[in-house]
Amino acid sequence: MNNYQEPIFDVAQLAHVEIYSPKPEETVEFFERFLAMEVTARSGQSAYLRAYEEPYHNSLKVTEAKEAGLGHAGWRTLSPQALQRRVEAIKETGMGRGWIEGDIGHGEAYQFTLPDGQLMELFWDVEYYQCDDAYRSKLLNRPSKRPERGVPVRRLDHINLMSSNPQKDAQFMIDNLGFRLREGIEDEGNLIGSWLSVSNLMHEIAIMPEPNQVPGKLHHLCYWYGIPQNLYDIADVFKENDIFIEVPPNKHGISQAFCMYVYEPGGNRVELFGDAGYLIFDPDWKPVIWDMKDVPGYGDTWIGTAFPDSWWTQGTPVTKTQNV
Amino acid sequence: MNNYQEPIFDVAQLAHVEIYSPKPEETVEFFERFLAMEVTARSGQSAYLRAYEEPYHNSLKVTEAKEAGLGHAGWRTLSPQALQRRVEAIKETGMGRGWIEGDIGHGEAYQFTLPDGQLMELFWDVEYYQCDDAYRSKLLNRPSKRPERGVPVRRLDHINLMSSNPQKDAQFMIDNLGFRLREGIEDEGNLIGSWLSVSNLMHEIAIMPEPNQVPGKLHHLCYWYGIPQNLYDIADVFKENDIFIEVPPNKHGISQAFCMYVYEPGGNRVELFGDAGYLIFDPDWKPVIWDMKDVPGYGDTWIGTAFPDSWWTQGTPVTKTQNV
Amino acid sequence: MNNYQEPIFDVAQLAHVEIYSPKPEETVEFFERFLAMEVTARSGQSAYLRAYEEPYHNSLKVTEAKEAGLGHAGWRTLSPQALQRRVEAIKETGMGRGWIEGDIGHGEAYQFTLPDGQLMELFWDVEYYQCDDAYRSKLLNRPSKRPERGVPVRRLDHINLMSSNPQKDAQFMIDNLGFRLREGIEDEGNLIGSWLSVSNLMHEIAIMPEPNQVPGKLHHLCYWYGIPQNLYDIADVFKENDIFIEVPPNKHGISQAFCMYVYEPGGNRVELFGDAGYLIFDPDWKPVIWDMKDVPGYGDTWIGTAFPDSWWTQGTPVTKTQNV
Amino acid sequence: MNNYQEPIFDVAQLAHVEIYSPKPEETVEFFERFLAMEVTARSGQSAYLRAYEEPYHNSLKVTEAKEAGLGHAGWRTLSPQALQRRVEAIKETGMGRGWIEGDIGHGEAYQFTLPDGQLMELFWDVEYYQCDDAYRSKLLNRPSKRPERGVPVRRLDHINLMSSNPQKDAQFMIDNLGFRLREGIEDEGNLIGSWLSVSNLMHEIAIMPEPNQVPGKLHHLCYWYGIPQNLYDIADVFKENDIFIEVPPNKHGISQAFCMYVYEPGGNRVELFGDAGYLIFDPDWKPVIWDMKDVPGYGDTWIGTAFPDSWWTQGTPVTKTQNV
Repeated sequence: MNNYQEPIFDVAQLAHVEIYSPKPEETVEFFERFLAMEVTARSGQSAYLRAYEEPYHNSLKVTEAKEAGLGHAGWRTLSPQALQRRVEAIKETGMGRGWIEGDIGHGEAYQFTLPDGQLMELFWDVEYYQCDDAYRSKLLNRPSKRPERGVPVRRLDHINLMSSNPQKDAQFMIDNLGFRLREGIEDEGNLIGSWLSVSNLMHEIAIMPEPNQVPGKLHHLCYWYGIPQNLYDIADVFKENDIFIEVPPNKHGISQAFCMYVYEPGGNRVELFGDAGYLIFDPDWKPVIWDMKDVPGYGDTWIGTAFPDSWWTQGTPVTKTQNV
Repeated sequence: MNNYQEPIFDVAQLAHVEIYSPKPEETVEFFERFLAMEVTARSGQSAYLRAYEEPYHNSLKVTEAKEAGLGHAGWRTLSPQALQRRVEAIKETGMGRGWIEGDIGHGEAYQFTLPDGQLMELFWDVEYYQCDDAYRSKLLNRPSKRPERGVPVRRLDHINLMSSNPQKDAQFMIDNLGFRLREGIEDEGNLIGSWLSVSNLMHEIAIMPEPNQVPGKLHHLCYWYGIPQNLYDIADVFKENDIFIEVPPNKHGISQAFCMYVYEPGGNRVELFGDAGYLIFDPDWKPVIWDMKDVPGYGDTWIGTAFPDSWWTQGTPVTKTQNV
Repeated sequence: MNNYQEPIFDVAQLAHVEIYSPKPEETVEFFERFLAMEVTARSGQSAYLRAYEEPYHNSLKVTEAKEAGLGHAGWRTLSPQALQRRVEAIKETGMGRGWIEGDIGHGEAYQFTLPDGQLMELFWDVEYYQCDDAYRSKLLNRPSKRPERGVPVRRLDHINLMSSNPQKDAQFMIDNLGFRLREGIEDEGNLIGSWLSVSNLMHEIAIMPEPNQVPGKLHHLCYWYGIPQNLYDIADVFKENDIFIEVPPNKHGISQAFCMYVYEPGGNRVELFGDAGYLIFDPDWKPVIWDMKDVPGYGDTWIGTAFPDSWWTQGTPVTKTQNV
Repeated sequence: MNNYQEPIFDVAQLAHVEIYSPKPEETVEFFERFLAMEVTARSGQSAYLRAYEEPYHNSLKVTEAKEAGLGHAGWRTLSPQALQRRVEAIKETGMGRGWIEGDIGHGEAYQFTLPDGQLMELFWDVEYYQCDDAYRSKLLNRPSKRPERGVPVRRLDHINLMSSNPQKDAQFMIDNLGFRLREGIEDEGNLIGSWLSVSNLMHEIAIMPEPNQVPGKLHHLCYWYGIPQNLYDIADVFKENDIFIEVPPNKHGISQAFCMYVYEPGGNRVELFGDAGYLIFDPDWKPVIWDMKDVPGYGDTWIGTAFPDSWWTQGTPVTKTQNV
């Protein structure tokens, strides 16, 4: 029994995501006006934003670029020692890019790429959000008052990447960062979809196949409401403002989360979560593996009809081979 | 920075709770009929039950006794090695009771008491629920089909104890089991209320003051729906059946959880959770401390009026000094 | 101003619907087990059912037949005098079938057909539901306790018919029964869809085009929850039991109602309403007319993607010309 | 049977309410900022507002006054002829005040008082809201886009008055305006509370006892969401802004409506409705009569604890005899 392989507990959370946008002002307006996020800083071609229940300075960086896509994903470790341990592990893989001094909102960070090319970083030092007295809530566990505009999201939840080799990327996250596989999709014996987490969430990251093996794409990032009805409220606001709803509010089979998908004006897909789905407390969790043929109508959506083709094929940046 | 005190990650979850009931058949009926839990075993004076999304054989043991109250709380560790580490730590405190062979649903367990006297146990070996084909769901992450009776709860969430010395018990959980203090209530400098967790939940256990310093009491155990409206549905069912609702559906300030409180027929208070409240991902979380004078109308309930006196004073077993 | 045409207030409500089923036992089980309706009588090849907040003996009659479809729709008038007035009006149209003695749950009724052939009846005398003491609720406006099985519907809401000439049928309802046109769909100047009501609901009846001009079909009947989340709960139950969900929970544009569509085992489409949509109080309401080209993605669903073809083409009885 | 007394159908709806406020700017801000109503006109000491799904120019008039209270309630009739009929009936009671030329948003109106003194008016001519193109919704049955601030209410629902002789006022509404008694509270044989309607709503007006027989008071006015969760969202916003919540979101027994009560800054109580409660379609409805002793904990609230004393005793204007 003492041979039991204990899990690595070194990565704590998805702390921030940087997205690229060819229409940065409209992208920022989307998150600020509709999702009620707060712009906490602007610098160069970038704006930094946070949701009202997030404790840190920012969870989203929007950077102007020619094409939509992922800038990078930032993971906070459980301790400074944990950061050192993970950096050592990554260095051995040859995927390390090296240390940066930091960015607005956090200190020095170690950058690396996934086998598929997406940029990530690990860090420990973080800047906490400083709340003006005018926005301080009497609800002491809430870092700032609930905004009165749009339908306010509460926190960043997860990211989802497309990959030319999703099994390889999943294995990288498992081996080097301590992620555990929570659910997966197999197609003829290959693991083509992975939902991975370091926490009680069933995923902070998912990795799906890019149908033409184009590397480096973002499928979506997701913010969290935790209240199912809020998805209907924001859907109503989106529809009034001609924001395209790709998948209306619905319950995923995989994750059981109450979800919806829209596109921000820069072209990136954004998911919104209306509840917590199911949470995982079993420390010896055995991955739930779906056969791809059972996914449409069950795994993608538990209560609806199969997801549209665009959901399975489109990521950012959009490539010419992508004909949806 | 390398002096940073890394947290202990050895306890994974609250795995089961045993409650005593002077009316065991009615207590079992309450959980089975209204909350749609399944009786998975009966033995001696005890019945064992589980909720439909729980992976283990049981999460609740109802044992006949002269008075209502807590039998024991069972915690599963993260690994067999983690179990050994925690047992060593507890032995040093002198609170250890020793190993038992196990019970229906789990293997050998190490028992100990809190300073206030409540019995607990730690274990690793667990029996998973075996689902009959007739109850197997096409939703692969759901261990058995959603029941069609009552309003089905999904999983055990937490317990709340009353204590003659709540600060001492909280410190015991922190020092020996690796719990972290998430929120607290101070009264004239003393920590009289504690919400503690080992996971992203803001608590698996809370400890409140017993107003007359009577030791060993249970305040409540809590099952989870994750969907706010379900509290209204079950409240409607309870009212039709004369189940006393002490606090109707409401949003806690502390924890932000959407909650309600009722009494099962044996006399124990049961809470039900309608959402996930807020989840904690910051690995360096600083406890949120309330002053007791700010709790009524803000900390107990964020949207309502202060909780009734009974909520602050009554636990099980009920004592004669308790005059509410 | 005194030339203003005052509306007719003679028809009060859709009181019951009879559906045909080739699998009557399974059809009854669908309404009894999942929607928690009560079988209040059985006679010959028919079963009679009611929802728990309905005041009358029954609102649904399920009759065995070779094919699924509409038996008849029963409308209760506002008074015995109103019944006489409407019967006189219908007699003049030549569509009257004459009086019947009544049925289980109501007294004498006057039967007639729509131009498209669907059978209807008008009546005044009604039998109220007699509640056993064991099922009497302390909620005095609730005719019987909320059931504990399935996800209980509260009352019949409306019916929707397909017609070979929908404009003609709508005009018949307006001219002879006092219905008012609330919303409509026009295609090249023709009114192809109508939502009509005699109450503050935006419809008790809707009439849609049958794409092959096959007369006499039922599109669906609808029961009401009034609580949006209940649609998700019943969808979960349906999915566990392989009941086909044609349209998952969604907000209609036309009517604004929160809706979903499933098929009962006999083959008839059943809609469920999760809220009240919008209610009409303006006594001088001007019909809201949609152009057919604006309906998909806006009028059918306000927050989702256009409804499936089957929704636009399939009714009962199913005909051979129907190739969906 | 032809002796059956047919109901009067002459009053269509509660069309607008005027409230007095000693803090008119703050009162207007309450409705505009939090409930997202639109100020459609200002004139003299008054502001006029509407909710986004209301078809008329305004449903609320806020008028500066020394004390909070009811200005008047405006009822729209079903036709110009119906207006004449009701005016004739009222003239015979001696409670008529005479015709006024109209107000912003409607034409000539006939004013009268209840026996208890509250001012009311009847009218037919109404001004419809003219929507700027920028605010026009693609949802054609919605008179203007859903606002993006606060938590937007959809329409005026009802008013509730306190009376020195509630039975007398109820009888006046029944006899002269055609209201039907839907639910009532009796205390030792006297009808002390009445819920009355002319529509399928269970009430557009309720009349409760003023405990000291002070005449002319307003208990509350109510706006409608139709979505239960919206009450939690607005409660969160209210709590962040120190708006006093007298009764948190809760399900009434009488009416079954999902409700909450707050005070606008001018001192008037405002109710908000989160669903439609139950609707009445039975044309021969027998009033549901509660004994006052059964109301606390059942009639006031079906799922909670009895309403606070303030709810039973406080109205506007506040009088010195009122010691809550």
